[in-house]
Amino acid sequence: MSTILDRLAEIIESRKLANGGDPATSYVSRLFAKGDDAILKKIGEEATETVMAAKDARVDGDNAKVLYECADLWFHSLVMLAQFDLSPQQVLDELARREGLSGLEEKAARKDELRDAAETQKHD
Amino acid sequence: MSTILDRLAEIIESRKLANGGDPATSYVSRLFAKGDDAILKKIGEEATETVMAAKDARVDGDNAKVLYECADLWFHSLVMLAQFDLSPQQVLDELARREGLSGLEEKAARKDELRDAAETQKHD
Amino acid sequence: MSTILDRLAEIIESRKLANGGDPATSYVSRLFAKGDDAILKKIGEEATETVMAAKDARVDGDNAKVLYECADLWFHSLVMLAQFDLSPQQVLDELARREGLSGLEEKAARKDELRDAAETQKHD
Amino acid sequence: MSTILDRLAEIIESRKLANGGDPATSYVSRLFAKGDDAILKKIGEEATETVMAAKDARVDGDNAKVLYECADLWFHSLVMLAQFDLSPQQVLDELARREGLSGLEEKAARKDELRDAAETQKHD
Repeated sequence: MSTILDRLAEIIESRKLANGGDPATSYVSRLFAKGDDAILKKIGEEATETVMAAKDARVDGDNAKVLYECADLWFHSLVMLAQFDLSPQQVLDELARREGLSGLEEKAARKDELRDAAETQKHD
Repeated sequence: MSTILDRLAEIIESRKLANGGDPATSYVSRLFAKGDDAILKKIGEEATETVMAAKDARVDGDNAKVLYECADLWFHSLVMLAQFDLSPQQVLDELARREGLSGLEEKAARKDELRDAAETQKHD
Repeated sequence: MSTILDRLAEIIESRKLANGGDPATSYVSRLFAKGDDAILKKIGEEATETVMAAKDARVDGDNAKVLYECADLWFHSLVMLAQFDLSPQQVLDELARREGLSGLEEKAARKDELRDAAETQKHD
Repeated sequence: MSTILDRLAEIIESRKLANGGDPATSYVSRLFAKGDDAILKKIGEEATETVMAAKDARVDGDNAKVLYECADLWFHSLVMLAQFDLSPQQVLDELARREGLSGLEEKAARKDELRDAAETQKHD
């Protein structure tokens, strides 16, 4: 049971305008007020920031920034999940379902094989 | 305690080459063998796929694909965390630390204010 | 007149399946055969690779890789434009239209101001 | 000869702080003042916005937004190129060098084959 993710999801849910969230006082409510694109744009932004932090970490040895940006990425994932009426528990369940990791790797492998099948053809 | 994330992190850790992971048989070991850029590229890819799934969900009502892509994004985040000797628990701790959400929103708000300060100036 | 972009656009156009492009022999035809998501995913991927190349350039001084990845990003932009029946000339026209740069900066500035207006409010 | 790109590059060059650009009055100078990460973050942002605009275009038929976001992506690419002392002409030269498209497709194909070679192995 992921208490922290659940609690965050609850707080985020309470920030929805329909639940009394106020864009004037809450960053998350402001994202909800702006709608899908503002939230999805943050997923792209935080992914880019995570990549940059990881590159920096190899230079300055500061892994904490990777942690920090990954937390930002996951946090905005939670906002997106709420926007689509999904819960972090459902993501964890999906990860568990694939697990043994064999399940998950199997899936990634299948994806690779499909791509290989599509790609292994003569080229120009 | 986030059992699923912890278990996934353990399995991923075991896929490291130093821990006996075999690129010939494991997708995750293959990512570790390729190194930082291959792993970080997946963060960018999965973020893009999550955004596309979310756009699609508004058209076909299939939120399950958002869930699925978010699981992919989190899974590859776990691989990245392992690559930088970080754990999902540290990300959850960071999220908890910011919490009340006030903490977290405070932080996002501070970021906004700094940006506002930088931006609220005359333009060309 | 951007001869190179125009010529690339022509060649890309000829790779469309409707124009006789063959997925078995052409990478671009294969992208067209796969459709929107495969093409858009490349935009996300190449953007991430560009960002990583730029971070690397600050470490190893190899700016050529930035050039190379930027070329990849622009090339896949051309494929996307073709997929949406748009031409690089239309992108250049749009850039020219905004120009004096004042036009362009004006636009970016307006965007900032709208965002500032949205953001400059009390936070939690 | 890509007149528009060349002219934009010149204007962007003039916005560098070393060339008298003023962050107080110019959006581009402000990006230069912020440095690499602010510029690279825009690459990630504009790529995400381009992807979203393309998804929207399939719903509302508004291809103009794809054009507009692609112009934003190319514009911020120009800022990045300037930041790394590269020119759009060099990107066009690189694209031309690969051309016949055979050259370019050859390269993409080689990449695929290397990946196929790496991936076509047993999985867990």
